[in-house]
Amino acid sequence: MPRPKNVVVAQSGGPTPVINSSLRGVVETCMAMPDVFGTVYAGLHGIEGVLKEELINMSAQPAEEIALLSTTPAAGAIGTCRYKLKAHQQEDFERVIEVFKAHDIGYFFYNGGNDSMDTANKIAKLAHERGLDLVATGVPKTIDNDVGDSEFKLIDHTPGYGSVARYWALNIQNANEENRGSCPSDPVLVIQAMGRKIGYIPAASRLADPDREMPLLIFMRESGLTLEALADRVNDTLKLHGRAIVVVSEGFDVGDIGERKDAFGHTMFSASKTSVGQVVVNYLNEVGLAARGSARGNIPGTDQRHSMIYASTVDLEEAYKVGQKAALIAAEDGNGYMSTILRQPGPIYNVYYDKVPLELVANSERTFPKHWITPDGTDVTDDFVRYARPLIGEDWPSVPLVGGLQRFARLKPVMAEKKLPPYELQAVREKK
Amino acid sequence: MPRPKNVVVAQSGGPTPVINSSLRGVVETCMAMPDVFGTVYAGLHGIEGVLKEELINMSAQPAEEIALLSTTPAAGAIGTCRYKLKAHQQEDFERVIEVFKAHDIGYFFYNGGNDSMDTANKIAKLAHERGLDLVATGVPKTIDNDVGDSEFKLIDHTPGYGSVARYWALNIQNANEENRGSCPSDPVLVIQAMGRKIGYIPAASRLADPDREMPLLIFMRESGLTLEALADRVNDTLKLHGRAIVVVSEGFDVGDIGERKDAFGHTMFSASKTSVGQVVVNYLNEVGLAARGSARGNIPGTDQRHSMIYASTVDLEEAYKVGQKAALIAAEDGNGYMSTILRQPGPIYNVYYDKVPLELVANSERTFPKHWITPDGTDVTDDFVRYARPLIGEDWPSVPLVGGLQRFARLKPVMAEKKLPPYELQAVREKK
Repeated sequence: MPRPKNVVVAQSGGPTPVINSSLRGVVETCMAMPDVFGTVYAGLHGIEGVLKEELINMSAQPAEEIALLSTTPAAGAIGTCRYKLKAHQQEDFERVIEVFKAHDIGYFFYNGGNDSMDTANKIAKLAHERGLDLVATGVPKTIDNDVGDSEFKLIDHTPGYGSVARYWALNIQNANEENRGSCPSDPVLVIQAMGRKIGYIPAASRLADPDREMPLLIFMRESGLTLEALADRVNDTLKLHGRAIVVVSEGFDVGDIGERKDAFGHTMFSASKTSVGQVVVNYLNEVGLAARGSARGNIPGTDQRHSMIYASTVDLEEAYKVGQKAALIAAEDGNGYMSTILRQPGPIYNVYYDKVPLELVANSERTFPKHWITPDGTDVTDDFVRYARPLIGEDWPSVPLVGGLQRFARLKPVMAEKKLPPYELQAVREKK
Repeated sequence: MPRPKNVVVAQSGGPTPVINSSLRGVVETCMAMPDVFGTVYAGLHGIEGVLKEELINMSAQPAEEIALLSTTPAAGAIGTCRYKLKAHQQEDFERVIEVFKAHDIGYFFYNGGNDSMDTANKIAKLAHERGLDLVATGVPKTIDNDVGDSEFKLIDHTPGYGSVARYWALNIQNANEENRGSCPSDPVLVIQAMGRKIGYIPAASRLADPDREMPLLIFMRESGLTLEALADRVNDTLKLHGRAIVVVSEGFDVGDIGERKDAFGHTMFSASKTSVGQVVVNYLNEVGLAARGSARGNIPGTDQRHSMIYASTVDLEEAYKVGQKAALIAAEDGNGYMSTILRQPGPIYNVYYDKVPLELVANSERTFPKHWITPDGTDVTDDFVRYARPLIGEDWPSVPLVGGLQRFARLKPVMAEKKLPPYELQAVREKK
């Protein structure tokens, strides 16, 4: 019997609190099938690690550390990257194939969003052209919940979203305690939410208050409202309630904020010259509040995607299972699929795991359903709440503490032996 | 036997995750001594509620809600205020005495910082001049840990600080996972810490990494460093480690940020036109990083003082006990003291509770010990770590969830019957 082909797993893009739960799912499942899968490697910092032949041996790690991945947030364990393999830049793609051949890789798991599914698909195609029988499998991930299509046929929701939704539900509860306690002199708290193009994250604030008892206003990019309209709604709320909690998307249109772009050409809002939250605070303080005191702002930034204790237990489990399912698909169905989460119809939340072709995901686009935004543009509907509520779960996750600090997974630096000449990344060449 | 005098408890200034734990301590202890204390009222929104004769009847609340105060963050339950009773504005002081007389108040508990201890002291003095035998007792609170003196003789640390220290310890751990995972393209994360004048909060970041394994730089106001020096240290760290986590105090001197002031004349950093964190991010991106990618920034703002799950169990217990102690002092020692926490010498963390005269606290000032800042100005010493480490405790607090959401205390709106004509606050008069 031939030796089973080896495995590379890699992550791409922004992290989530549960990204490592999917990693654990892939690794443990591959290791449970030694007849199918050989050594499991992880690309250090995603595809960059593959290009640079920096492959961590996951099979050589202590089982305890692999288990601890589930409660280790963000991508610190194996790293991620924002390095884009450009279609016109054949060199990078050829290098990936070369590295895969050198290490007898037959399986490639790529954890990311639509862009990453496209990349995985292209790598698999080129591999086949170059005579490498590669099975490429996608594992979905984004906090933005923007993977798949708007009809939820390809995927119901993306792992990572449930946790950031829970972050917003619980943090708006906390913020409401401060706002209602401090309101005579400190009446407006503006909080900026992530989600550059799509409003699932700010929308999740509504989960803090499904009965609409708080003076909570949600300004998604999709509302199409102006800064003037925003200020009017805030002042209307101040007149009624004496206070307001204003959640605004980082993508809400306030004009020029001195944006910076990442390698994908996406705006990196937290690296901009100013922030939407700050612009909103300044505007409210300039036009004047219909109350004593000033508006103030919080920009939690990356905290919302790496605060482990806010992870949803439902999300943690689902992230593990899509990783597990990806390994099963690779073993049983072969090349070209992404594992997916689909919801069973009916009043009880229940999901099942399936596969969808990478190509369908790569060419899909999700938008926030228009009918989930209220007519005045400052709230989301009960249908959205019914969709999102189950994703945040019921309980706190068990995040182990040792010496008062979080005990995160720490992988041993056991790397695959390098077999190829060094390769210089385009981004490094550009920096010189 | 005469009917025991009634009680007013009130909160002042910015909240903490454990402020309500002290409130619970005062209320439960007073209610346990019905021979000494009559009905316990709370001023709605602090001294503003006293002036407006808006007094919540705490004795009429369900025991369950009072117990839940311990895991209810910030000041939502009874409210706080930033309303300053000005010494030259005799009218407000006279009104407080009038309200106290009307409701047969013999005990006044004031929860706050040095300013509030001063106010409590002045109210007690005027009460005595006006023939009201008032026992005023202070309950210490601030996240800044700036109550008392720099020799820790009046108080070792202030309730509230241990929880915000824990927030920073755990959040820097989380941020480090993201930063090390994303560093090739996203190498610098700047996080702005609260603490307008004093660096205990940014200093607590060191608790995340007592062994100094992370590329963590702490820029306190007290460092006296310039923005240029900051950028140099960041780039030195990038050259060594390829990444950096930069904690910067909101009070770090970066020049004009368009400050706004609160009623005390204190800068409200989160209401400023820009933020120190943003200025640092922009400066780093302008001078250029010694690495690929951009600097990005998080401004957690009020989140660090109202995120309940990050509260320290040690802080929660101590906050309760200083509230309890305040009630005991009022009953046994009479007027003019603040309850305090003092640390027993020796290697094992152990505290005891005592009293100090309000006047001493009112006239004291704490600064961050200079010898706890490292010579290069970007770190704190092991002595600081030994001081602060015990305050963050060992475990997660038990924050109850119902329906996936935090179950906070909800007081019934049972108010004392108004007995006086209405009174208009100065701030309201000014707004007109």
